[in-house]
Amino acid sequence: MVSQTDFFARHADRLEKATEACASRAYFSAFNESPSPKVYGETAAAEGKAAFDAWLGTVFPLSTPGAEGTVATERSPYGFDLGVSYPRARDVEALLVAAASGMKAWRDAGPDARTGVCLEILDRLHARVFELANAVQHTSGQAFVMAFQAGGAHALDRALEAIAYAHAEMTRTPATALWEKPGRGEPLRMEKTFTVVPRGVALVIGCNTFPTWNSWPGLFASLVTGNPVVVKPHPQAVLPLAITVQVCQEVLTEAGFDADLVTLAAEDPADKLASNLALHHAVRLIDFTGGNAFGDWLELNARQATVFTEKAGVNSIVVDSTSSFGAMCANLAFSFSLYSGQMCTAPQNLYLPAAGIATDEGTKTPADVAAGIEAALGKLLGDDARAVELLGGVVNPGVLERLAGAGSGERGDVLVASREVTHPAYADATVRTPTLVGLSADDSDVYESECFGPVAYLISTADTAQSIDLFRDTVQRHGAMTAAVYSTDDTVIADMREAALDAGVALSENLLGGVFVNQSAAFSDFHGTGANPAANASYTDGAYVASRFRIVQSRRHV
Amino acid sequence: MVSQTDFFARHADRLEKATEACASRAYFSAFNESPSPKVYGETAAAEGKAAFDAWLGTVFPLSTPGAEGTVATERSPYGFDLGVSYPRARDVEALLVAAASGMKAWRDAGPDARTGVCLEILDRLHARVFELANAVQHTSGQAFVMAFQAGGAHALDRALEAIAYAHAEMTRTPATALWEKPGRGEPLRMEKTFTVVPRGVALVIGCNTFPTWNSWPGLFASLVTGNPVVVKPHPQAVLPLAITVQVCQEVLTEAGFDADLVTLAAEDPADKLASNLALHHAVRLIDFTGGNAFGDWLELNARQATVFTEKAGVNSIVVDSTSSFGAMCANLAFSFSLYSGQMCTAPQNLYLPAAGIATDEGTKTPADVAAGIEAALGKLLGDDARAVELLGGVVNPGVLERLAGAGSGERGDVLVASREVTHPAYADATVRTPTLVGLSADDSDVYESECFGPVAYLISTADTAQSIDLFRDTVQRHGAMTAAVYSTDDTVIADMREAALDAGVALSENLLGGVFVNQSAAFSDFHGTGANPAANASYTDGAYVASRFRIVQSRRHV
Repeated sequence: MVSQTDFFARHADRLEKATEACASRAYFSAFNESPSPKVYGETAAAEGKAAFDAWLGTVFPLSTPGAEGTVATERSPYGFDLGVSYPRARDVEALLVAAASGMKAWRDAGPDARTGVCLEILDRLHARVFELANAVQHTSGQAFVMAFQAGGAHALDRALEAIAYAHAEMTRTPATALWEKPGRGEPLRMEKTFTVVPRGVALVIGCNTFPTWNSWPGLFASLVTGNPVVVKPHPQAVLPLAITVQVCQEVLTEAGFDADLVTLAAEDPADKLASNLALHHAVRLIDFTGGNAFGDWLELNARQATVFTEKAGVNSIVVDSTSSFGAMCANLAFSFSLYSGQMCTAPQNLYLPAAGIATDEGTKTPADVAAGIEAALGKLLGDDARAVELLGGVVNPGVLERLAGAGSGERGDVLVASREVTHPAYADATVRTPTLVGLSADDSDVYESECFGPVAYLISTADTAQSIDLFRDTVQRHGAMTAAVYSTDDTVIADMREAALDAGVALSENLLGGVFVNQSAAFSDFHGTGANPAANASYTDGAYVASRFRIVQSRRHV
Repeated sequence: MVSQTDFFARHADRLEKATEACASRAYFSAFNESPSPKVYGETAAAEGKAAFDAWLGTVFPLSTPGAEGTVATERSPYGFDLGVSYPRARDVEALLVAAASGMKAWRDAGPDARTGVCLEILDRLHARVFELANAVQHTSGQAFVMAFQAGGAHALDRALEAIAYAHAEMTRTPATALWEKPGRGEPLRMEKTFTVVPRGVALVIGCNTFPTWNSWPGLFASLVTGNPVVVKPHPQAVLPLAITVQVCQEVLTEAGFDADLVTLAAEDPADKLASNLALHHAVRLIDFTGGNAFGDWLELNARQATVFTEKAGVNSIVVDSTSSFGAMCANLAFSFSLYSGQMCTAPQNLYLPAAGIATDEGTKTPADVAAGIEAALGKLLGDDARAVELLGGVVNPGVLERLAGAGSGERGDVLVASREVTHPAYADATVRTPTLVGLSADDSDVYESECFGPVAYLISTADTAQSIDLFRDTVQRHGAMTAAVYSTDDTVIADMREAALDAGVALSENLLGGVFVNQSAAFSDFHGTGANPAANASYTDGAYVASRFRIVQSRRHV
């Protein structure tokens, strides 16, 4: 058994740097995002791939209390069944009782010991980052490098960020204090003890597209604050979270805690496990990433719990003018293409004046802008072998259906058509380039809904003032995770900042280089705001961690 | 118009000291709790009384948007109608639109300017503390000194504490940051702006017994974070909050903000104004103090809002043994007597072994303990003129009904009878001493409910282990704001600490001197935990402030 204190001491420097970065919002990363052999060693990639391959067709060695039989529900978007079986969680009561059984010892260990264990878990996950990247690739459909970064290194950074916030929040109140109130004679003197206590069992409901990046912040925020965590993965993306739970249990056991403090609750999609768990009185915290329908349902119905949701919205860009038409089109083309627009942060609506925008290459009409983006897409995606490394695979048939429907109805003209891409390594993978559909400001019935996947709308407006109004209004009513503006006019930038504050959405201004609207950097960029319908929480601010525990005091005269 | 910056600078030292005290939990108070002429000057008391008297029978000079006519609903528990008329809030839509109209300018002022305004409001309220104390006395029934302390100085401290927490939370993220990500060539370099944005209109629902102490933390926590606040007072306790709103509007106006950022929503009790406001989509924050029925209803139904409740519970004391029987009885007698047990923190259930407890005066049976407390009550309350300064007045007829019913049914023996006390100054005041009713552990149907008022139960148990089990179980199921233990046995103390952590309630140990279980000190003691059914929030921790605002960022290359 490893001393709990050792883990904390071992990672104290990392925690301190992370905590400082959260406060300064300057650049910081604890986990290298480059899968290069120079960073991770010559054998790491092959070993990680082999570790992933070894899981295929096996029974994953986890035991889930209350499970009956197994489920094997995953098929890679690259065209093969994973065939990994997991315990099928059936008896919710038994699962939650088992989850809670180790809670008291975990509570009594205190903030530093719990933080040490969680930081050690991150280190062990990092040691398996190539294996995780393969697991994320073949459940989400992300291309390998993206899976390594977003699903590995960046997800670890987001987890570390959540742990750093939670540690700061738990330790801002001292464990003991001396209170002396002056009086006429002797002062009143009391010693006070303050203890962090958990809320109860936490439920984490994972999504298909970002099984680690979107699940780890909530998982570790709840765990480090003393709560047992039941991890309910998306049936199509179990393996990355099964590995996660395995590592959590390994470290918890080594440190002398109950392994069932973190459990995997896999299901057959027909089991409705998430809603059964979410309504149980023992579940006091819920983290959810996924569609608006279930997210809204959770917020309305899981009243015994504090619910953190990241749902979806209509990410929007106002295009007014630009100092570099080429760079703008290239930047936008990349944002549309990355993981085939299957990111909750991918842009969908581009508002621009029908009369065109001022650029370094003269006035550009909406048709010119579409052509500019099409040319940029051609450069990015012209070669199939290169294209698949950006596009990844289509995650599910729903995306294809939406893509087929886009621009085919009464509303909208296809300005840039989607193209089938052949994956050189995976013949059965479904890969598509983005489509760009032209709409008018009147087509709000089309552009006010999320069209998840590689579909973007070029919406012609009367002028930039109308663009900004439509942006503000659409985000206030339907939500957004991201927004952007292109303008060389300081007044327009100021108006957009104001509109973004009103709409409660993060704004990127004139991205013309190596930063993209769909990317958010841990420790610096907040992901989601909680201030519009797309999410009720943010990675990571104080509100994301503060209500995951309570402080209970005792006091006595001394 | 006063510069907004001036207010912040003027009170920066006070804010800093408050923030430090919140972190150290050491003794701190910014507002002197002694109503002595030596502290406040020879004329302050008389001037405050005169200011209060001048309100009687008048129309309070506040205008509430959407109001129609007036209401005058207050009668002093000391036996006279206040006869103060307030605008009757009727058109909820108009009220909320007006409340929100100044929100953008208030948001744009930023954390420091808002904090300065709120701290200036506290200063102006402090200047009217004697007037407020009279208003609290004659709405709640608290005796004057208590009204001055709990309703004035301590309430100001609690408000300052909430402001300090909120300011720290808002400013932990810098307003701007520079982010530089190293790359192969030039680093990626971005400037980022972080803006605190409000949630929307906040609703504060006041209570009858502590109109300021329980309303100010939520009011100022919401206001300082950028939210307009609609104050809905209890119909029996409007004046203290009308004065509060008046002062808020005065300072807001001086600083150039919209006065309707803080409004008074008085009602006829039949208007159901609180529930109408609470369910409105524009209301995004709710602070409630009052009964469990409406508090639970708010938590379940006001789903568009983040709801902070302080309800009620069954405050419990486990008596195992003591080093000073006399001091213990004196301390308990004081706690039962203070404001006639009409505090949400007043103890109700005393669990002790039927066979008696070990004391410095030998073994004491439950009957002996009752006799000891009765003797202590006699010393405290034997003289009517002194007694009323501790007991205050009975706040409403419900309290008298419960008092009459206590011990009169099939269950329970009256061990100490309540006595009518004649108020020397207010002949029509209803004043009663506490009653002590003996029960057995089997009488859970009686002692598991809150009996609000001067009623305490002495519950005979098999042994201290059973006492602790009953304590833990009752608090987990029915909640508690406070708990205490008397024991000379370290094992019992340890077991009680463990039980208090399990039950999520603050514990006071062996109070034998000048600190009482029903008192909590701002900056050091957390009031409520949010970890049991009596309250879902605490004055004041990070969770109390962190979700009252969101952070919206923008970013651009530099």
